[in-house]
Amino acid sequence: MNFNESLDIKRNYAEGVLNSYLPTVEGYQETVLEAMHYSAMAGGKRLRPVLMNECFKLFDGKSRFIEPFMAAIEMIHTYSLVHDDLPAMDNDELRRGKLTTWKKYNEAIAILAGDGLLNFAFETAVKAFDMAKTKDDYEIIARALKVLSSKAGVYGMIGGQTADVLHENDSEITEDVINYINKNKTAALIEASMMIGAILAGADEKDIMDIENAAFNIGIAFQIQDDILDIISTTEELGKPVHSDEKNNKSTYVSIYGMDKAHQKVKDLSEQAIGILQDIADENRVDGSFLMTLVETFINRRK
Amino acid sequence: MNFNESLDIKRNYAEGVLNSYLPTVEGYQETVLEAMHYSAMAGGKRLRPVLMNECFKLFDGKSRFIEPFMAAIEMIHTYSLVHDDLPAMDNDELRRGKLTTWKKYNEAIAILAGDGLLNFAFETAVKAFDMAKTKDDYEIIARALKVLSSKAGVYGMIGGQTADVLHENDSEITEDVINYINKNKTAALIEASMMIGAILAGADEKDIMDIENAAFNIGIAFQIQDDILDIISTTEELGKPVHSDEKNNKSTYVSIYGMDKAHQKVKDLSEQAIGILQDIADENRVDGSFLMTLVETFINRRK
Repeated sequence: MNFNESLDIKRNYAEGVLNSYLPTVEGYQETVLEAMHYSAMAGGKRLRPVLMNECFKLFDGKSRFIEPFMAAIEMIHTYSLVHDDLPAMDNDELRRGKLTTWKKYNEAIAILAGDGLLNFAFETAVKAFDMAKTKDDYEIIARALKVLSSKAGVYGMIGGQTADVLHENDSEITEDVINYINKNKTAALIEASMMIGAILAGADEKDIMDIENAAFNIGIAFQIQDDILDIISTTEELGKPVHSDEKNNKSTYVSIYGMDKAHQKVKDLSEQAIGILQDIADENRVDGSFLMTLVETFINRRK
Repeated sequence: MNFNESLDIKRNYAEGVLNSYLPTVEGYQETVLEAMHYSAMAGGKRLRPVLMNECFKLFDGKSRFIEPFMAAIEMIHTYSLVHDDLPAMDNDELRRGKLTTWKKYNEAIAILAGDGLLNFAFETAVKAFDMAKTKDDYEIIARALKVLSSKAGVYGMIGGQTADVLHENDSEITEDVINYINKNKTAALIEASMMIGAILAGADEKDIMDIENAAFNIGIAFQIQDDILDIISTTEELGKPVHSDEKNNKSTYVSIYGMDKAHQKVKDLSEQAIGILQDIADENRVDGSFLMTLVETFINRRK
């Protein structure tokens, strides 16, 4: 089986897990449940749950605690897109070629669907405790919950999103602020995904820190590549208007340092990440080739 | 010490706990942190954390796990108000005589501050695990987290809020829908508050169910009283425009059943709730007089 076939299987598995945890669409609140389904099942690479599960396997993880966390991280990623697309934020009407949630329903329902997905992510992650038997089980699930909640919040994704909004039209933006935004808006959830995989598999402190570093590199590289693609790709390829960042006067790593330096940075970060992951795979005598290819493909994607 | 003096002390304690858990206002994301503080510290009765702590004492609770949950429930209550006030929702510019969060900052920051508070509520509640020593400790904290997350979500508060939004201009609204909205939009967080107090104090299943029933009655009575006050009070007293529900064509228990039936319903529900709580206080040989007076005062408030 080649890489793309494996990736399809793993994505389908992650999507199946997500779907199995989403609430049934019924009751007086069914519109919000439908909007949650609409946004969560509107495609997407399912990269975060796939990365989580691959890191889990890198440490030979075997428990079923991983599934509620795979669903939870994708719900958090989805809610962030739903709120991000709102008129008061990026005011986007299309995502992946489909109407955004507020455009499909309305603003009120999109706000509530985002809130619903964020809250439901925690409801879902907490279900892992139902499978806990020993005190050790409780401890690692609590640890994973701590990482999930902190990386998604004001010291993680929401913090990055705030700085991004505040500097939207800032042509004098500093590298410090860009780094803060990239680390928090994008890398934080990648860090959470990979760290939670390691934590739930019982990895030790040093390994969890190494995974966090690798994930940071992957997240930053991914964001810079995204900025590069934003400039070079066409509407047709991305399913959204090109130069949408430029239109909004958003400064990025690319607009400040230029294309060449940006390409080099992506290459360096990606090599560092793969180096860390390869060392762990070797140490644990685990085949990490799928994970390495995934990281490489994901970072160097052309669309 | 009379009831009002005791209430002041307990409110100040709850507010102090909340304030101690709120994030420090600093860093590139400080605007969102400031908005979170602004909304969380803009007054309010602190009823939910006070009720939580009183139920905790009703079962002779002594652990310090209660404090992060007291802060968390108030953060969830606050975020719901921040999002509720948004232009796309109730479009309110004033709350408790102060500018609402979106009016004070802007819509984007208010959306992020609401997200930040909801997420931070879970970050805060999860901190209770840091104090856990035994497997029993982990189990009761996990149980409390489950109640917190489910009562706040699409099968609780967010569900109620959705139905409320969907039936905003529905003059044909049925009693079923009104009951669903009142149970979920208002009672669910009161239920969570009181149940979590009982759970963290180690109450048994039957007692937790009794507390849930008492809290349900209190929540519904509170909402109907709110609807009554909305009709009879003045702008000056409430700090917001009178008849705001009527202006929005919202049907309520009062507009359907009339003032007399509404008053009777509040009285019945409040007596039932106090009966349940008194039985538990008697059984546990605990002085529940403050809690009983609180429930009565709170439900029968005139503003």
